[in-house]
Amino acid sequence: MATLADVAALAGYNKSTVSRALTRPEMVAPETLTRILTAADQLGYVLNRTASQLARGRTGLAAFVVPTLENAFFAPIIGGAQARAAASDLHLTVTVAPLETAAQVAALTRLASQVDGLILAAPRGDDTHVRAIGAAKPVVLVDREIPGLPSVVADTATAIGTVVAGLAERGHRRIAYLGGPAGSWQDPGRSASAREAAAAAGVELSVHGPFPATFAAGVASAEDVLGTGATAVVPYATALALGLMLALRGRGIHVPEDVVVSAETTVVDALGAPGIPAIDVDGEALGHAAMDLLTSAAPDTLRLPVRVSWSG
Amino acid sequence: MATLADVAALAGYNKSTVSRALTRPEMVAPETLTRILTAADQLGYVLNRTASQLARGRTGLAAFVVPTLENAFFAPIIGGAQARAAASDLHLTVTVAPLETAAQVAALTRLASQVDGLILAAPRGDDTHVRAIGAAKPVVLVDREIPGLPSVVADTATAIGTVVAGLAERGHRRIAYLGGPAGSWQDPGRSASAREAAAAAGVELSVHGPFPATFAAGVASAEDVLGTGATAVVPYATALALGLMLALRGRGIHVPEDVVVSAETTVVDALGAPGIPAIDVDGEALGHAAMDLLTSAAPDTLRLPVRVSWSG
Repeated sequence: MATLADVAALAGYNKSTVSRALTRPEMVAPETLTRILTAADQLGYVLNRTASQLARGRTGLAAFVVPTLENAFFAPIIGGAQARAAASDLHLTVTVAPLETAAQVAALTRLASQVDGLILAAPRGDDTHVRAIGAAKPVVLVDREIPGLPSVVADTATAIGTVVAGLAERGHRRIAYLGGPAGSWQDPGRSASAREAAAAAGVELSVHGPFPATFAAGVASAEDVLGTGATAVVPYATALALGLMLALRGRGIHVPEDVVVSAETTVVDALGAPGIPAIDVDGEALGHAAMDLLTSAAPDTLRLPVRVSWSG
Repeated sequence: MATLADVAALAGYNKSTVSRALTRPEMVAPETLTRILTAADQLGYVLNRTASQLARGRTGLAAFVVPTLENAFFAPIIGGAQARAAASDLHLTVTVAPLETAAQVAALTRLASQVDGLILAAPRGDDTHVRAIGAAKPVVLVDREIPGLPSVVADTATAIGTVVAGLAERGHRRIAYLGGPAGSWQDPGRSASAREAAAAAGVELSVHGPFPATFAAGVASAEDVLGTGATAVVPYATALALGLMLALRGRGIHVPEDVVVSAETTVVDALGAPGIPAIDVDGEALGHAAMDLLTSAAPDTLRLPVRVSWSG
């Protein structure tokens, strides 16, 4: 994907001139503008129109689009984005739209006309659906990447590899990974990372799913997990982990004595036992970064680190 | 609270004439209008302007305001409201605003000018804050009542009384109630209902809190609960129940063998043990009712029953 720096290099201007040309063309000499636009065109550079449109403040509204509100994962991200929106004197609304049907895309396109920009957490919708929204208004993707669109992703895949490696080091020979929702953009990266780490450590890894990120799905996964003889489980989401923990308990299996289940630090700490991996996405930082991208012109692709720790 | 029927009776017109006078005054004879407005004024009747404004469809947007997205309780309510909004060709956005500070109220008042109406889940904001929003646009309250404003409330208080009575019947002599957030509108009704049921059954009830409706608060409550010697706990929210269950487990206390904790059916069923009370709010029905009130002119106060069942 071409960046602002690529356009600057090809056109022979510095980045601030290119940025000005693209966002405030009236402030740049016509000849300069022509060279920059030609370079941008040759490179297929997609201008993120956020800066110009948001600066004009047409509505003062931005929208955060989530596929569901049942997954608490989005709450701190929305909180972070909301804090930054307030600082830019924008009001952030939240819209629930999985973007899986044409009707959902159409409804969101109508909404897009009433806001200045959108942050999209669209783990499952087709690229074309997401691009349709991006064509209507400036967008920033959260936890998903599509070439040409700005995005911020939590690098959970790397964290999951670290957890699998750490479990192997702590003596677990059979580990189960509980995958996320069908079609989730994050899931293939996470399961690949788990597989690589297991292969490198020479331990068995079973991959299960797809599962929606819900407590009920975690309960339902207990049968699968028990069938594998795994002594450690790495679920895609905290809600899955909680459902699995209670369902294992209901079958007389002790957590974490018999089976270790990774989760957020809050959950891991509640159990008060050592050797449990905690995976913590800094949702607030994700939200901050997403809103910062929306209010800037940079079509950046950011990957934020995800913290792994072990109860002691 | 005065109703449309009261105004009709005092003014001496039928309800449809009164409704027309209040929503389309230009269609009513001036003399009729004067009599009806005088009657409305005498009775302190608050016109719900939803029908007229929504019918004109100024923006096609409605907003669902929640204090936080960390409490999964709101997800099915928003889903229910969203389904009904789509049927009325409205797009429902969600706004996170606890309505506890003047700045939050001011931001929401600005948002109100960009939507046709609002559903407010405002468990903690002052009445005056909520009324300020109601003065700007048609509102419907969820899980809270303020005289003169339409509302729909889940009758969790009655359900909690039923649970406490049922626990006493099943032999529990010491029961703990974990209260909700400070200033919550629902909490005093719930704790009063728990106290009455305990007194009627002649069992001890300890009341704890306030607690935010979070997993972490449930973990923190374990110390309090253990101090009481309670064999059954009734938490305000499912997130509290989950945190408490895992924290008790971490202290070597078996759930439900040593301590029974009430929760939603999904959680209770995961444990696969008998005698656990399940409390289920039909969030979707709550959302349906709230949106129906918003799109009708009726300033109704609805109380929906909450289901109590026992694992067998």
